[in-house]
Amino acid sequence: MKKIVLKSLLILLLLVNTAFAAEPLPSWNDTGAKQAIVAFVEQVTLDGSPNFVPLSERIATFDNDGTLWSEQPMYFQDYFTFDRIRALAPQHPEWKLKQPFKAVLENDTKALAALSWPALEELIMASQAGETTEEFAQAVKDWSATARHPQTGRLYTEMVYQPMLELLEYLRANGFKTYMVTGASQEFVRPWAEQVYGFPPEQVIGSNFKTKFEMRDNGPVILQLPEFVLVVDNVGKPVAINQYIGRRPIASFGNSDGDLQMLQWTTGGSGLRLGLLVHHTDAVREWAYDRTSAVGKLDKALDAAKARGWTVVDMKKEWKIIHPFEKQ
Amino acid sequence: MKKIVLKSLLILLLLVNTAFAAEPLPSWNDTGAKQAIVAFVEQVTLDGSPNFVPLSERIATFDNDGTLWSEQPMYFQDYFTFDRIRALAPQHPEWKLKQPFKAVLENDTKALAALSWPALEELIMASQAGETTEEFAQAVKDWSATARHPQTGRLYTEMVYQPMLELLEYLRANGFKTYMVTGASQEFVRPWAEQVYGFPPEQVIGSNFKTKFEMRDNGPVILQLPEFVLVVDNVGKPVAINQYIGRRPIASFGNSDGDLQMLQWTTGGSGLRLGLLVHHTDAVREWAYDRTSAVGKLDKALDAAKARGWTVVDMKKEWKIIHPFEKQ
Repeated sequence: MKKIVLKSLLILLLLVNTAFAAEPLPSWNDTGAKQAIVAFVEQVTLDGSPNFVPLSERIATFDNDGTLWSEQPMYFQDYFTFDRIRALAPQHPEWKLKQPFKAVLENDTKALAALSWPALEELIMASQAGETTEEFAQAVKDWSATARHPQTGRLYTEMVYQPMLELLEYLRANGFKTYMVTGASQEFVRPWAEQVYGFPPEQVIGSNFKTKFEMRDNGPVILQLPEFVLVVDNVGKPVAINQYIGRRPIASFGNSDGDLQMLQWTTGGSGLRLGLLVHHTDAVREWAYDRTSAVGKLDKALDAAKARGWTVVDMKKEWKIIHPFEKQ
Repeated sequence: MKKIVLKSLLILLLLVNTAFAAEPLPSWNDTGAKQAIVAFVEQVTLDGSPNFVPLSERIATFDNDGTLWSEQPMYFQDYFTFDRIRALAPQHPEWKLKQPFKAVLENDTKALAALSWPALEELIMASQAGETTEEFAQAVKDWSATARHPQTGRLYTEMVYQPMLELLEYLRANGFKTYMVTGASQEFVRPWAEQVYGFPPEQVIGSNFKTKFEMRDNGPVILQLPEFVLVVDNVGKPVAINQYIGRRPIASFGNSDGDLQMLQWTTGGSGLRLGLLVHHTDAVREWAYDRTSAVGKLDKALDAAKARGWTVVDMKKEWKIIHPFEKQ
């Protein structure tokens, strides 16, 4: 018995050694961004270093759209919303004649691409409200397992960034607790975030609806109501980080002006901090956009990055591959 | 080098063995409540058992006031609020003539004990709003290190329940992720909850204020505003659990009607569940109260416990000691 335990421990030791020996971030070229990340992680994890950070304080926050997965030509939650509106349409005959529902049902792509935020909000509400959290999670799960991106033909969950998956893994291996902090509905992300990224639901922070606890005959439910209680974008990101986590992150990762305040909050703390922006520069393998994009606009945050010394990843030059399926 | 590693591993193994061999919950008599807890934990952690629960799903939620620490003759946050109002009074000369502030400044204990919720809410707002989260956390830290309970003369943080500290430790040793879910302000609890109970701030869920992100000359701050965005009591408990954690707990611990819906939500899930209420029955070592108490009223939840088979702890009979200082 003792022998077996010892043998298992030795194997474990060997595995740990191998893990540490392997080069981190294999899909990143050995250029500025990777060097900045590795230097940061080595400093904050080096016991005795003036920049050492204890385990409990190693909090890292990640935006999702455009930072962990693609976001063009529309946020992927919008595709879900439209699909959900179509699925629910038989119960709402009035939608056929009423905008913005009419545009969705007729798949009027031009009108959909130009939707105002209030119109989109109305669709999001209609797609989520009145359902229990459990019913809605199942609808999201079913959708994420089958729905495909109109241009790539891939599952949306395949359109994540391989280099960022490796970054998540590298940070976790170095004792970081990683959180997603997204403007999307957290109820839209949580059902698949653990399997795809390794974020358990309690480490997914997103915009969310008012909900209501109800005792029904067959047990209690939590019902989604048509009212936002928290919008996790711009100034809403540090606010939500404070509400949910109660500590200031030491590293934050984003790609757009919606992440500006999160990076300000993170890098405004004392001690060594890492702020990083993913810059979409690869029109061939993904999309190229920044200061004038309707989706994922990166303008003020790009200026702030220069002024504050944040790391900016040039996707085209610094990432060997973008999506995991390129490996195949 | 290898020898040292092996030796360390053997010591670790020995410690692990010792930990498992030690009798859990030493301050609990071997009666119904302890037996129910141990039976539950053994079932959900036994690989191959039909009731086995994987690590990631082992979520346990704890009320604080009356469940983890005392709450008589008033919630301890109320004492903090009054002390804070007194400390801030020099900047608010108008408070001398204005209720409910006047009652606080004159220490009119009769009036204070009878405060309505709107009056108390006004005091809570005044004690917390307008400050940055960091300033406020420091004020709470200073207070919790020095303020003493008017009847026992103890620090409030000494008035925690030794059997519940052991229960937290026992659950954590069995892979549970433990959360506090309290009606008190989370900004009031987080600064000391890690040291006193072992809850990191991200595992403290409480009522909370609207906050605002602000860039100031010397860096970003988060400012507390005089408006509740979340009240974590009654139906607010399952709602907050869903918002922050996104999973249904498998065990919940409370002591009052404010915990009823949390226990309903937890025990309403499929599989083995544990709902437990602390019943304050010991007028000598602590306080005895239930159905008619102004603080920590336990009435409907006590009926529900009987109907639903929840465990009710008789503090007087089932706890060998109540507060840690009784050991000394």
